[in-house]
Amino acid sequence: MSDSSTVTAPSGRHCLKLGLPKGSLQDATLEKMAKAGWNITVSSRSYEPYVDDSELSIRLIRAQEISRYVELGYLDAGITGYDWIQENHSNVHEIGEFVFSKATRQATRWVLAVPDESTIKSVHDLEGKRIATEVVGLTKRWLDSHGVKAEVEFSWGATEVKARELVDAIVEVTETGSSLRANKLRIVETLLESTPRLIANHLAWKDEWKRQKVETLFLLLRAAMEAESKVGLKMNVRDRDLKNLLESLPALRNPTVSSLSLPGWVAVETIIDESVVREIVPRLKAAGAEGIIEYPLNKVVY
Amino acid sequence: MSDSSTVTAPSGRHCLKLGLPKGSLQDATLEKMAKAGWNITVSSRSYEPYVDDSELSIRLIRAQEISRYVELGYLDAGITGYDWIQENHSNVHEIGEFVFSKATRQATRWVLAVPDESTIKSVHDLEGKRIATEVVGLTKRWLDSHGVKAEVEFSWGATEVKARELVDAIVEVTETGSSLRANKLRIVETLLESTPRLIANHLAWKDEWKRQKVETLFLLLRAAMEAESKVGLKMNVRDRDLKNLLESLPALRNPTVSSLSLPGWVAVETIIDESVVREIVPRLKAAGAEGIIEYPLNKVVY
Amino acid sequence: MSDSSTVTAPSGRHCLKLGLPKGSLQDATLEKMAKAGWNITVSSRSYEPYVDDSELSIRLIRAQEISRYVELGYLDAGITGYDWIQENHSNVHEIGEFVFSKATRQATRWVLAVPDESTIKSVHDLEGKRIATEVVGLTKRWLDSHGVKAEVEFSWGATEVKARELVDAIVEVTETGSSLRANKLRIVETLLESTPRLIANHLAWKDEWKRQKVETLFLLLRAAMEAESKVGLKMNVRDRDLKNLLESLPALRNPTVSSLSLPGWVAVETIIDESVVREIVPRLKAAGAEGIIEYPLNKVVY
Amino acid sequence: MSDSSTVTAPSGRHCLKLGLPKGSLQDATLEKMAKAGWNITVSSRSYEPYVDDSELSIRLIRAQEISRYVELGYLDAGITGYDWIQENHSNVHEIGEFVFSKATRQATRWVLAVPDESTIKSVHDLEGKRIATEVVGLTKRWLDSHGVKAEVEFSWGATEVKARELVDAIVEVTETGSSLRANKLRIVETLLESTPRLIANHLAWKDEWKRQKVETLFLLLRAAMEAESKVGLKMNVRDRDLKNLLESLPALRNPTVSSLSLPGWVAVETIIDESVVREIVPRLKAAGAEGIIEYPLNKVVY
Amino acid sequence: MSDSSTVTAPSGRHCLKLGLPKGSLQDATLEKMAKAGWNITVSSRSYEPYVDDSELSIRLIRAQEISRYVELGYLDAGITGYDWIQENHSNVHEIGEFVFSKATRQATRWVLAVPDESTIKSVHDLEGKRIATEVVGLTKRWLDSHGVKAEVEFSWGATEVKARELVDAIVEVTETGSSLRANKLRIVETLLESTPRLIANHLAWKDEWKRQKVETLFLLLRAAMEAESKVGLKMNVRDRDLKNLLESLPALRNPTVSSLSLPGWVAVETIIDESVVREIVPRLKAAGAEGIIEYPLNKVVY
Amino acid sequence: MSDSSTVTAPSGRHCLKLGLPKGSLQDATLEKMAKAGWNITVSSRSYEPYVDDSELSIRLIRAQEISRYVELGYLDAGITGYDWIQENHSNVHEIGEFVFSKATRQATRWVLAVPDESTIKSVHDLEGKRIATEVVGLTKRWLDSHGVKAEVEFSWGATEVKARELVDAIVEVTETGSSLRANKLRIVETLLESTPRLIANHLAWKDEWKRQKVETLFLLLRAAMEAESKVGLKMNVRDRDLKNLLESLPALRNPTVSSLSLPGWVAVETIIDESVVREIVPRLKAAGAEGIIEYPLNKVVY
Repeated sequence: MSDSSTVTAPSGRHCLKLGLPKGSLQDATLEKMAKAGWNITVSSRSYEPYVDDSELSIRLIRAQEISRYVELGYLDAGITGYDWIQENHSNVHEIGEFVFSKATRQATRWVLAVPDESTIKSVHDLEGKRIATEVVGLTKRWLDSHGVKAEVEFSWGATEVKARELVDAIVEVTETGSSLRANKLRIVETLLESTPRLIANHLAWKDEWKRQKVETLFLLLRAAMEAESKVGLKMNVRDRDLKNLLESLPALRNPTVSSLSLPGWVAVETIIDESVVREIVPRLKAAGAEGIIEYPLNKVVY
Repeated sequence: MSDSSTVTAPSGRHCLKLGLPKGSLQDATLEKMAKAGWNITVSSRSYEPYVDDSELSIRLIRAQEISRYVELGYLDAGITGYDWIQENHSNVHEIGEFVFSKATRQATRWVLAVPDESTIKSVHDLEGKRIATEVVGLTKRWLDSHGVKAEVEFSWGATEVKARELVDAIVEVTETGSSLRANKLRIVETLLESTPRLIANHLAWKDEWKRQKVETLFLLLRAAMEAESKVGLKMNVRDRDLKNLLESLPALRNPTVSSLSLPGWVAVETIIDESVVREIVPRLKAAGAEGIIEYPLNKVVY
Repeated sequence: MSDSSTVTAPSGRHCLKLGLPKGSLQDATLEKMAKAGWNITVSSRSYEPYVDDSELSIRLIRAQEISRYVELGYLDAGITGYDWIQENHSNVHEIGEFVFSKATRQATRWVLAVPDESTIKSVHDLEGKRIATEVVGLTKRWLDSHGVKAEVEFSWGATEVKARELVDAIVEVTETGSSLRANKLRIVETLLESTPRLIANHLAWKDEWKRQKVETLFLLLRAAMEAESKVGLKMNVRDRDLKNLLESLPALRNPTVSSLSLPGWVAVETIIDESVVREIVPRLKAAGAEGIIEYPLNKVVY
Repeated sequence: MSDSSTVTAPSGRHCLKLGLPKGSLQDATLEKMAKAGWNITVSSRSYEPYVDDSELSIRLIRAQEISRYVELGYLDAGITGYDWIQENHSNVHEIGEFVFSKATRQATRWVLAVPDESTIKSVHDLEGKRIATEVVGLTKRWLDSHGVKAEVEFSWGATEVKARELVDAIVEVTETGSSLRANKLRIVETLLESTPRLIANHLAWKDEWKRQKVETLFLLLRAAMEAESKVGLKMNVRDRDLKNLLESLPALRNPTVSSLSLPGWVAVETIIDESVVREIVPRLKAAGAEGIIEYPLNKVVY
Repeated sequence: MSDSSTVTAPSGRHCLKLGLPKGSLQDATLEKMAKAGWNITVSSRSYEPYVDDSELSIRLIRAQEISRYVELGYLDAGITGYDWIQENHSNVHEIGEFVFSKATRQATRWVLAVPDESTIKSVHDLEGKRIATEVVGLTKRWLDSHGVKAEVEFSWGATEVKARELVDAIVEVTETGSSLRANKLRIVETLLESTPRLIANHLAWKDEWKRQKVETLFLLLRAAMEAESKVGLKMNVRDRDLKNLLESLPALRNPTVSSLSLPGWVAVETIIDESVVREIVPRLKAAGAEGIIEYPLNKVVY
Repeated sequence: MSDSSTVTAPSGRHCLKLGLPKGSLQDATLEKMAKAGWNITVSSRSYEPYVDDSELSIRLIRAQEISRYVELGYLDAGITGYDWIQENHSNVHEIGEFVFSKATRQATRWVLAVPDESTIKSVHDLEGKRIATEVVGLTKRWLDSHGVKAEVEFSWGATEVKARELVDAIVEVTETGSSLRANKLRIVETLLESTPRLIANHLAWKDEWKRQKVETLFLLLRAAMEAESKVGLKMNVRDRDLKNLLESLPALRNPTVSSLSLPGWVAVETIIDESVVREIVPRLKAAGAEGIIEYPLNKVVY
């Protein structure tokens, strides 16, 4: 297990060891990796899936543990949530955050929740109480920062059901709050908002080859996510209508305008948010655009 | 329930109340809406699904009933079949028809059907007989128009199986006739052909904002359906071959021709029916086209 | 059954009778045909599925048997594996090979395998032994060519499990070897590598109309397969950076360069392997490219 | 269609034509028929399923319509709900009611429901209002009986969602009320309680052979349902403890007591409700019972 | 592989090696074995499943091959169809036949089938023709026995679809003939009727221990199958009604009559066919029986 | 949360609060409870499922945590594994153990496992090593008891895959060892064998009503489990053969022998292990038994 920071591929070429989250986030992560250009094949029970890049070596590990092994150098880099980096207090290099641009996607939040009828209204009411959570470290540090003393116990899951009679409060993860509401729990405070991050081991980051590999990975994952909410729009318009069309439609910023062989007409092409197409198409038609088509995209790099 | 024609969204902005068919057509309709640009999320039991447009308020209602509530003004607009508008005798404004361009999609027909061995050969043989159908009103008016008197009884479904021993004839909906043939029934006459329609309440249609909203909806639904059977085709060709290529291939009507930086070559791009690609590609190659590619489309607006 | 080489469609037009593999390869083959432009509908048990081309008549037959019936003239053409053409010793015209360009797709191999602990190390150790296989003919000819005499018995499947106690060795098909390893078998030698082929009956190939039909089929199947591993890449670049960008990136061979209305900028568009996108995008950015987008393709014809 | 009351099987033997409910109740009904001893095989689309009794001819018809066709004599007998017999105002002979003895099974109820916040508190508040329901006839007669005038419109289903904004009240079927509560509706009054019934045409009931066949059917269906909540209980006890055991345990009414070859011991066997076993077993043990076993039953006929 | 007839279990005890059919019959066979008392657990790909009897060692092998390996002595015994024993011309000892007593279960038949419109009417019309089949040996011997010379070719499956244009006739297996009819084929003659058999190797059969083991297996498999169509029936009746009840109901042959402690009453218990219960129960009631119960059975040994 | 030891049902009657394991053991446990006579209905997410006994209140909690909450008095009783009682070092009253009598069911074992090629051969080789496990407490106490010092780290699951390169050894739960073997791990030592237990809080056990309730629960759960591996066996035998039959078959201990009305015959009935039926039936037949039947059981109380 020594010497893990100098992993090389069988052929003697460089190799980056990358940790990806096993379990509930696994499918979503592998789908993003495929869109970015890396196809990963997981056989059952496999911890080392196949990836079609000899410079990359994938490990499937629980999201909770990835930052730990990146810090220790067993992994060069990994994708995990900001929450678990904080819970593990891991000293790693953070390359960047993945912002899901789809409107319905939200950051996950770790919140303090209590039964609807509880008298607890703020962190200060927790003095001397018992709290169950999967993130014991994070919760303790948060209580410390508020000068509150309370007992924090580790929960193996199904934490919501404990808040009513087994403990006084819980610290639990939520996206929309619907699971909490279903258990008749009320959110008191938010401890942390979390999004997925690409992280690297500090030594790996100082290695020129590894840093470039990680940066490329980040660039292409971002490009693939960006493309999920974008489409290409193409149309023909008369020369004389072009200026008016562009001025009246600020969404068409930075379009590609190319001349056509038919005199007096140009082709206009641009990339826009899928969500504005339904508003912009009627206005493009009104402004003289003809033959408007919308086509899908795989990647968008600004 | 009063005052439904002035629905406004929570924020005080305008809002259009739109009825979509619940049940067997629901998935297909929501898929078309998504292609048009409106993402609708249905939670179980939901009659008011979420849509990512604060100017729209969706209601899921049986197709049979939509025109009734549009006429009464509880809904501003709706998508339903021409058959149920006729059955309900609803007085509504029809914005337009959705023509499914895929070859296999056909209009649905309401037909008079009898057992293969029946002696009934035309509407006139129905005098004094018993007919089961889901469209009692439509059937009675059709019999009246032919001066025929017969008993029409409402059928709760599974109408085909009754034609053999429980009634003399049925009026039933069919697309390909295969279900009728499987029950050894013969089509005698067609009462009505039906396609999906976008309809609006007359008052709502006079409201400037609502009419524009409905028209935009229609424009984008049509664009999404059009794109299902179309593809983009792009190729490079020598200047001197261009005229010949375009003349010999009438399917390439209205192509976009743009100049390339390589002297003597132009790029030709067009939108054509997917079904003609397999015939046209060999001829394009023969006519001098190079680097031919075909790509998918999301929307096509003529 | 005579006269099969002059098949005509009901309407008196020409018709090509094409055999496609039934069973495990069926879905993959029909998907490729659809991408090429022929939509095939299989009803259960059907041997003659519907295809939306009146000049084509499809037969679903086991891959093992297709070359036999093409040779005999019952089929004009067919798609099958090189392995079964060899096993059947069929005298047919081979139009071409389908090379799956996706990195994970490999040719299938027929290999001689024995238990890990067996003393058999090469073909010469098989003298006097018993071998189970689905390809008896191919195995016997291979043994003959090495001057080895052994008993070859036909296996109905599940061949791997026999190698341990029922026979001395097996000849079995494998892609990745994982099924063999799971049964603790060791590959001794490879008898044959096999890929899918489009084949035609010799007489059909001499028929002008049929040869053209087969060639069109091959052209479009290749175009659809080619497109599976390709994407379109489009970007804007300054005039002054163009030469440098193209020289430093040999993967961008033969791009379409079109002028934009914005002075000093051109649009560059090209088709490249999806697998190189992850390497080339960082270098394109470094070379001055802006607004890089990747879009999917349906077909690519060189 | 004439002469339906003298249906005979192909072999010239007597035959009873029986209607069973198609749709949501179909599977449950066929399962009960199988427990009673008649195995019915439904092929897809089938209206006349196969039954392993040449004296029976099954028809699958909507529960709503069965009483109509029994009354007209197209069916000799049928199983349907009391609600639809009432809605259709059918004049038929009722053989008996099926009481589901499992504790969780309840009669279905047709209730008048309104939004929680509605001002409607009783049937008298409905004067001049609009009501949606699947049972238009039943609702109108109920309003008449209370001297209330209101508009009743036929609803094709999904009636709950209309009560909030499309109509003033609904008449809907419910078992536990949970679907109404989920739609925030309040039950105002109960119009009708309904259980499944076995009904017969009056003429068929006068036919000696048919009446016996229907009565046998009823006897065995009741026996199979009875057995669902019963078990057999068997134990050994000393002669001298027997009287005490029987007296202290009234649930053991009417046990079979048989002598054993071992002097001084008897075997006691009885049929009891499965739900009392958990209470009675400890008391049986205390009263001296040994070797207590519980076994399942298929049918119980009192 | 030598010496297979003296297989012993790890502990030095005797062991019987039993072949069971892998594939389409596997689940049904394992279910019967479980009912007989042997629980078999198959892990995926497993050829040697676990069985809870250390004196038994199971092998899952294609039904087609079992008799071959029993004959050779690699297996001591096996369950397979009479058809494959015949096809393989295997010299084995047949312990007995499994007769499925359920009414719907029929023996499978191998039949000669031709297209509906074929001129072939009997085996004698096959002279000089080509026949496709999975049972080449059986077909050739049958032709020989009729003095007919024809070409018989091995078919890999999906044989029905070949009969129309690839061969003149097929020999195929069928239960109800529905698959043949669906392919518009007509049955000309039946070559063989087949049921499952338990077979043993001749040497194994001479081994005292193995013969007893095989006979026990047969006894219990038969008992479990018998029980599938039987139920237990139990009732109380007055002494004075007993004779009349037994005489009038011949189905109650051989009942167990035991005295009860209540003077004047006896308990009658018998095992009868489930299919006669629905006829006999009303007559039992009429004859004075009370407290009739029906209970399920696991095994019945006559 | 105080005062949990005096829980009462809404009606003022006594109530026992029982913890059952949530997660992988949940379905099996609820099935056993149903067989014992308590039907539990779990709605999704529910922690307090419905049970058809007003004297019982169920909680679904992770098996790992149940003993902790029983000890604290939040639960009166619970079912959990001996392993987690030990891991939690819980001071609770153990009513009894559930022994699964089915042959294939084994106690689960917690074992120390290492890669096949590891040099670790016993607990003593662990000095200074790193061990991953879900049972940190249990592992540490086991190391202490052997005087070995090693680092024990908590694993969130998927522990097997870590043993190869992330840690030196793991302590993992296993039934058959197959998952370990699949990961090429070797078992070094067994730390603990575990079976399910019914436990109670010490105070609750002293409450007369609660102790009786818990004992009834145990009695009926044992009876239901006992019945899973038992069957009823019934046969007729001649008086003169009875003694011989009973003597030669010790498995028939304590049979019920009742006289029949047919002179010279008796009925013998007994309860035996399903697994001995296959051995005993041939011997019963040989000893003169006739009409042997086997029937299923729901519960067996000795």
